[in-house]
Order: sequence, then structure tokens, then C-alpha cells
Amino acid sequence: MPVSVLVLYDDRSAQVERLAHAVAQGAQSVPGVTALLRKVSEANRGDLLSCHALALGCPNWSGIPARLKAWLDEQGDLWEEGSLAGKPGSAFVVGRGRHSGLEFTLLALLHWMLACGMLVVGLPWSKEMERSGSYYGATATGAVTPEDLAQAQRLGRRLAAVALRLYPEEGRNAPGG
Amino acid sequence: MPVSVLVLYDDRSAQVERLAHAVAQGAQSVPGVTALLRKVSEANRGDLLSCHALALGCPNWSGIPARLKAWLDEQGDLWEEGSLAGKPGSAFVVGRGRHSGLEFTLLALLHWMLACGMLVVGLPWSKEMERSGSYYGATATGAVTPEDLAQAQRLGRRLAAVALRLYPEEGRNAPGG
Amino acid sequence: MPVSVLVLYDDRSAQVERLAHAVAQGAQSVPGVTALLRKVSEANRGDLLSCHALALGCPNWSGIPARLKAWLDEQGDLWEEGSLAGKPGSAFVVGRGRHSGLEFTLLALLHWMLACGMLVVGLPWSKEMERSGSYYGATATGAVTPEDLAQAQRLGRRLAAVALRLYPEEGRNAPGG
Amino acid sequence: MPVSVLVLYDDRSAQVERLAHAVAQGAQSVPGVTALLRKVSEANRGDLLSCHALALGCPNWSGIPARLKAWLDEQGDLWEEGSLAGKPGSAFVVGRGRHSGLEFTLLALLHWMLACGMLVVGLPWSKEMERSGSYYGATATGAVTPEDLAQAQRLGRRLAAVALRLYPEEGRNAPGG
Repeated sequence: MPVSVLVLYDDRSAQVERLAHAVAQGAQSVPGVTALLRKVSEANRGDLLSCHALALGCPNWSGIPARLKAWLDEQGDLWEEGSLAGKPGSAFVVGRGRHSGLEFTLLALLHWMLACGMLVVGLPWSKEMERSGSYYGATATGAVTPEDLAQAQRLGRRLAAVALRLYPEEGRNAPGG
Repeated sequence: MPVSVLVLYDDRSAQVERLAHAVAQGAQSVPGVTALLRKVSEANRGDLLSCHALALGCPNWSGIPARLKAWLDEQGDLWEEGSLAGKPGSAFVVGRGRHSGLEFTLLALLHWMLACGMLVVGLPWSKEMERSGSYYGATATGAVTPEDLAQAQRLGRRLAAVALRLYPEEGRNAPGG
Repeated sequence: MPVSVLVLYDDRSAQVERLAHAVAQGAQSVPGVTALLRKVSEANRGDLLSCHALALGCPNWSGIPARLKAWLDEQGDLWEEGSLAGKPGSAFVVGRGRHSGLEFTLLALLHWMLACGMLVVGLPWSKEMERSGSYYGATATGAVTPEDLAQAQRLGRRLAAVALRLYPEEGRNAPGG
Repeated sequence: MPVSVLVLYDDRSAQVERLAHAVAQGAQSVPGVTALLRKVSEANRGDLLSCHALALGCPNWSGIPARLKAWLDEQGDLWEEGSLAGKPGSAFVVGRGRHSGLEFTLLALLHWMLACGMLVVGLPWSKEMERSGSYYGATATGAVTPEDLAQAQRLGRRLAAVALRLYPEEGRNAPGG
């Protein structure tokens, strides 16, 4: 059974959806990894529990939009159960301004992951980061650019590569889980 | 005696210096307010204690550069004394990438101010924020643009206007100080 | 007409409610200021628009609980309109662990306020902060203690005192609004 | 050659030193892992480059103390080179107040790591977190308690277990490095 990367996203924004597809493409490009795309409106708790890695994305609504947060709130006490502990996670966010809280909303997603005991996988510096992407994850402001897609794919590949190392054998538990 | 706004900045970057000048111009444009520009290498504790409002700026070095933080660390236990409590403050930061930690470094400056009991004054949304500026303060990435300067001036004006309301009479103490 | 402080809170936690009452008491103790307590389930957009200052509180649900965020999301584009710009704001949060994201959830509330162009009023250091309260606002972990209530009252007084300075005359607009 | 965990800390605080020792003990307890304790005043760039995982600790000085930040600033453009990219990292911080910026200083350390392309390993929820530890790393406020030491050891074990998975064979490069 391959390692699976769940790409879960708040689908009210076409740009978020485009980034989600790019993250999934990046993950899928790693041999031994399968990417699973899910809109928040169609996902369930089982999707979260069964994945090996999670990429979570939304628009910047001065924090996580309530609809996505409501879905997360409704999945039970994941933080208390430790059901996701040890799984690697990444974030992607679309905003209107370049510095109008994009980083904070990425951080809010990463904070939720850390509260679930997850490991955080961001993006390292590259020349592209002058114009797109953050240490905290993939980004777009306004229209999605080729650089935005390249950074989102890179994030997906990176998350998948980490998941593959953490789960080298089927059924093996996460470290620190 | 007019209300004074201290614009204190880490001067190893020409862009930070340009933003500092724009913040000072904005503050100075408010009748009844005087702006005081100070490089960190030339400032002293008295400058901090005597100002009515503080704008603090630096480059994004994945947080506050050590040189500026060293200066802040050396000014004594301002947080414990409450010497700056109640004064309004603002931040400005220059970075290389659009979302590569610019917001976090602004937040680090604002955090230091809140730890001193200061009030935080940022920028409200405007059309310009699509390209420059943050809710957390003024910004530039790469070369300083006319929009960066406009946002920095706006921040200076806003900070000065707040200071003028908080200190309507000479020698009046800050509220909550 | 007196200056009004709106204390708005997510009322699913008895501890949040106790902190809300303490913040309101503190605000009300400042001559010339009226405090208005509102549960999120009973508040409306007019409450936000008509107040001079806002204190916002919730439990720590690894960020803002969706119910409160939904209410905030539904009040329209306050950030874009600038309807709250220039008003001072404060936050209070109740959590289960001492450092399990309490500060982050306070920051998430303050971030939303900054995104609306509001000014941030926190708590300065005091001996009590060794056990309760944050630079970001008032707190409780587990059962509400007398120190928690004292810090919440202090926050209310501080917010009210700032509001009184910013709005010395009836009907005067906020600076930087 | 075993997997090595570098525990690097600002040693001006006896409590930080005690947490550092506990993190190292936890890491060392994982078979196949060696912990290396280093005071910032004695560490060098080679220590950073050669380790497989990094735990970084300091007191809460309303952010990272300048002395530690100066050391980090002086190690060259690690973020730009990607020299640490893909390595897992953890943080620990000692403060005076329970919520007076402890989380923010942990976040500042994690932010620096993410800016270097590192992966972030925190602590999952446990009953102990009601009194000690954060999703962002290990903590102490005031005197170090047995719970503080237990959480610091847990963090060390967790970081070591993740490093062991990421580097199963000697000389293997980090994923996403």
C-alpha cells in the first residue's frame, strides 16, 4: 500500500483549488506516494485518520475561514486523542494583499497541526520565494502565477518525500505518535 | 511642547532608512507633532523614555536582527519598570521575499512593544495593501516603491494622530501606563 | 453620551463568561465609560459599529472556535470598509494548558482586530503576570482564579481609559479611522 | 555512525541548562542516537552542519535574546544555502510568567528553523501539558519542575525518533534538503 498524502482544502476560491491541485501533483510525482484531493465539504474524519500526511489550504480571511475551522472543530478531540500525532503536515493560503495576513493564516493552519502533534513541513528558501511562497507553505496573491504553482508542487513533493521516510513500511506507526 | 514620535531603525539597509524617513515625514505632517529620526547605533535610553510614540524598523533577518535586539536588550528592564507602558508604537520591515517572514518580523517588533505595555498601531486595509504594507506595519520587498513610501507615510501619520489624542496636554501621563 | 466598551464573548464556557464580566466591571469602573456585555449568539453588527472599544473573548480551540469566527465572518467586509478602524481592542482567552496555544488564540483575536484597522491594547507586566494574564490580554487556565479576575478587570480599565482619551468628545471620529 | 541530535542553548540561565540536559537525556535514550550538548558560547558552525537534528533553547526575553540571535546571525546565510534544510528541529524556552510571551519565543525559534528549511517537531497533548510544555516545545516558568523535565525528555525522544526515521542510513541526505 502506498503512502498517501491528503490535500484538503476550502473550495470557495478557484485560486485555492488551483494550488491544491498543484500540491497534489507534486506529491503524486514522488514514487510510492498517492495524493488524495478532498474539498472540505466532501471530506470526513476517516480521510484524516487514514492519510500518512496532510496538506491543508484555505483563503486568508484574517485567519482560517469559519467554514474550514468548523469542519476541523467537528472532527472530535483529535488533539486530545493524538490521532494525527506524528504525521507530517503542510499549509497553503491564497490572499488579496502581499503581506496582509497571509503568513498569519498559514501559521494558524500550522498551529492547528502542531496542536494535533503533527510535524511541520514548509518550504526552504529559493529564488522563487522572492515572488511566491513562504517558509510556512505555498501562497498566491490575486491571480495564480506559474511561480505559485511551482512552489505548491515543490511543497507537495517535499511533504511526500518526508512522509515516505517516516512511513517506510506499510502499517508502521508514526514516530512520536 | 509638541508630541514627539521617535523613529528608531537598524540602519544597515538603505531601504529601511528610506522607510524610516517616510514614516517620519508622515508623523511630522500632523500639526503639533515632531518626528525624531534615530539610527540604533546613535540612540540612547533617554530617546525611548522621552518620546510619546515609537516607530521601530529593521530588515527581516528571520526575526529581529541581533544588533537591534541587543540594543533593545541593553536598555534595562523596560518591560518590568513599565517605562514605556501606554505609549503607542508601530513597526516597519524590509525583506527580500514577499512572504518570507516579513509579517513575522513585524510581529516580533510589535510583540516587544506589547511586552513593554505599549499600544499597537498598524495599517488599515487600503487598495495599496494589495501591493505594499501589512496590518502589522509598513513594508518593502526589494527596491522601495512609491507605494511602500505612501504606506510608510500613512503609518507615521496614523501613529502621530493617535499619540496626539493620547497626550492632549503636555506632561500628561499615558493611560494604562 | 458616554464612551462605550463592548465586551463580546463566545459563551459556551463558564470561565470565559466570568472573565467577560470582570473585563466589563473594569471598564465600567472608569468614570464616563459604559460597558456592554454581549454573547456572540445575541450580538449584531450594530453593536460592533456603535461601540467605541471592543473586548473579544473565547475559549482556546487551537485558534478561534469556528462559532465565533463564523459570527465575525458574517458581519460583512469590516476590514475593507474600515468600519472599525481606529477603535481600540483587547482580547481574553481561557484554555486548559498553561502554554498550549493560549497566546496564539489571543494573537488570533488581536490579528483580526488589526486586520480591521483597530488599535491593540494588552496588559503590561505586573507581579500577577507570573501566574495570570499575558501581554496579549487576560487569561485563565482551568478554574478562574482571583488573579485571573484581577487581570481581566485591569484589562477592562485599561481599554476604557484608552478609549476615553481617543474619543474625548461625543461623536468624534477615531484617529486613523 | 549514529544519528546525532545537537542540543544548543543560551546558557545564562540555570533553568535553560536543566531543560537542555533533559532534552539531551531524552534523545540519548533512543537506541542509535547520540546527543551533543553545546552552550552557544562554545558552539560553531560545524556543529550545526554536522548534526542530524537540532534542539534550540533560550530564556524568554520578549523574543530570542540578542546573544543567541547574534550567534545565529553570524553562522552565514544558512537559509540561503539550505545547509540545514530537511533536518528536524525542536525548541525549549524558560520564562517568568506563564503566558508572558513564552509561546512567542518558542515560535521565534521555530520560525528561524523553518526559515532554514527545517522540519518542526513539537509536543503532542498529554495530561502533563496542563501544567508544563507547549505544542511548540518544552517550557519552564520559574523553578524547573519534574513535569518540566519529563516534557523536555519527551521532546528529546520525539526529535530523536523522527531523526532516526529521516536518516535511516549513514550519509543519507535529508528529504527536501
